Amino acid sequence: MIKASERLAKQIDFFKEIDKLKRVERRTLLTERVRYENSAEHSWHLAVTAMLLSEYALDAERPLDQLRVLKMIIVHDLVEIDAGDTFVYDDKARSDQADREKRAADRIFAMLPHDQGTEIRELWEEFEARATAEAQFAAALDRLQPLLLNFFSGGSGWQKNGVLRKQVEAINRPAIEKGAPQLWEFVRGVLDEAVERGFLKT
Amino acid sequence: MIKASERLAKQIDFFKEIDKLKRVERRTLLTERVRYENSAEHSWHLAVTAMLLSEYALDAERPLDQLRVLKMIIVHDLVEIDAGDTFVYDDKARSDQADREKRAADRIFAMLPHDQGTEIRELWEEFEARATAEAQFAAALDRLQPLLLNFFSGGSGWQKNGVLRKQVEAINRPAIEKGAPQLWEFVRGVLDEAVERGFLKT
Repeated sequence: MIKASERLAKQIDFFKEIDKLKRVERRTLLTERVRYENSAEHSWHLAVTAMLLSEYALDAERPLDQLRVLKMIIVHDLVEIDAGDTFVYDDKARSDQADREKRAADRIFAMLPHDQGTEIRELWEEFEARATAEAQFAAALDRLQPLLLNFFSGGSGWQKNGVLRKQVEAINRPAIEKGAPQLWEFVRGVLDEAVERGFLKT
Repeated sequence: MIKASERLAKQIDFFKEIDKLKRVERRTLLTERVRYENSAEHSWHLAVTAMLLSEYALDAERPLDQLRVLKMIIVHDLVEIDAGDTFVYDDKARSDQADREKRAADRIFAMLPHDQGTEIRELWEEFEARATAEAQFAAALDRLQPLLLNFFSGGSGWQKNGVLRKQVEAINRPAIEKGAPQLWEFVRGVLDEAVERGFLKT
């Protein structure tokens, strides 16, 4: 037995458990197309993107709470350890996504000391609810990141799954336009280019 | 051409460039031993760990600037896109590590708009200098995380590279003891257990 306080033992168990997120595969290829992205490296990519693009968040009057945005992004996919990644264009999988993810949250966050489990659960729930400026910005990036990776990898994710431009718009526009309106204008240009280059069908 | 301001175009180029960090392989196996970890998911794992373990940081009198810790962790390995991951037990590779990483920083951070390139470079330099409490805590975690993954994956990283307990102590103790002294006591117990189970040779 390794000597540790009950609190530290729980924190280390959680540390070990979340290593599994590195094995949750997403439907997005890396830009170099060698393999699919996993949810842990996706979360990291979002975190850097949040550092870069916070100036495009909706509420220019009130600066975002950057720490809250980063924490939310870092933990937003932990439930996928149990629930798996749900492909945004898969309506069937999305129908029970909320239930699967809630059960996952109940198990995974309960591994932590109570105060920390509560904090991380609240961050996850805030992200899911999309009610604060921070959550809306994080959610916008969570849509933007795979869309850009799809574009940079030649649209193979869209083609493989038979996704059309109108679906890309329907799925991504609400979140991006709400959390980072200027970036939606940019994304429209990306989609125009994707269609022109034959990456995306209309 | 996709319509974007010069500033946004630079930010998006950088977004695309850093996708490459997902392909930089480290010497640490995932706990399930299926493959080596990459530097992007390592950075994410460190970020969660920083959220969990900040109570063990050295300076209990002055709470850490958590935002600075997270930002530093998120960007600390970006230079590896060019410089690769340098194995801590490889003295030869470490001899020119600083030069390789400085050249990488010059190229990669210059891709960004000047203000953002400067901010990220300063975060990276702060991490490397280990002079602030935030950098010391981040550096402690950067040692702790692979050490724990090595333990949880049965010591295969140590065995494969013929690493002995005294080397593990020499490499990891200074940073962990400085940035998170209580965690060093815990780590000693981990190493005792690793030796007892035959994961690590003395």
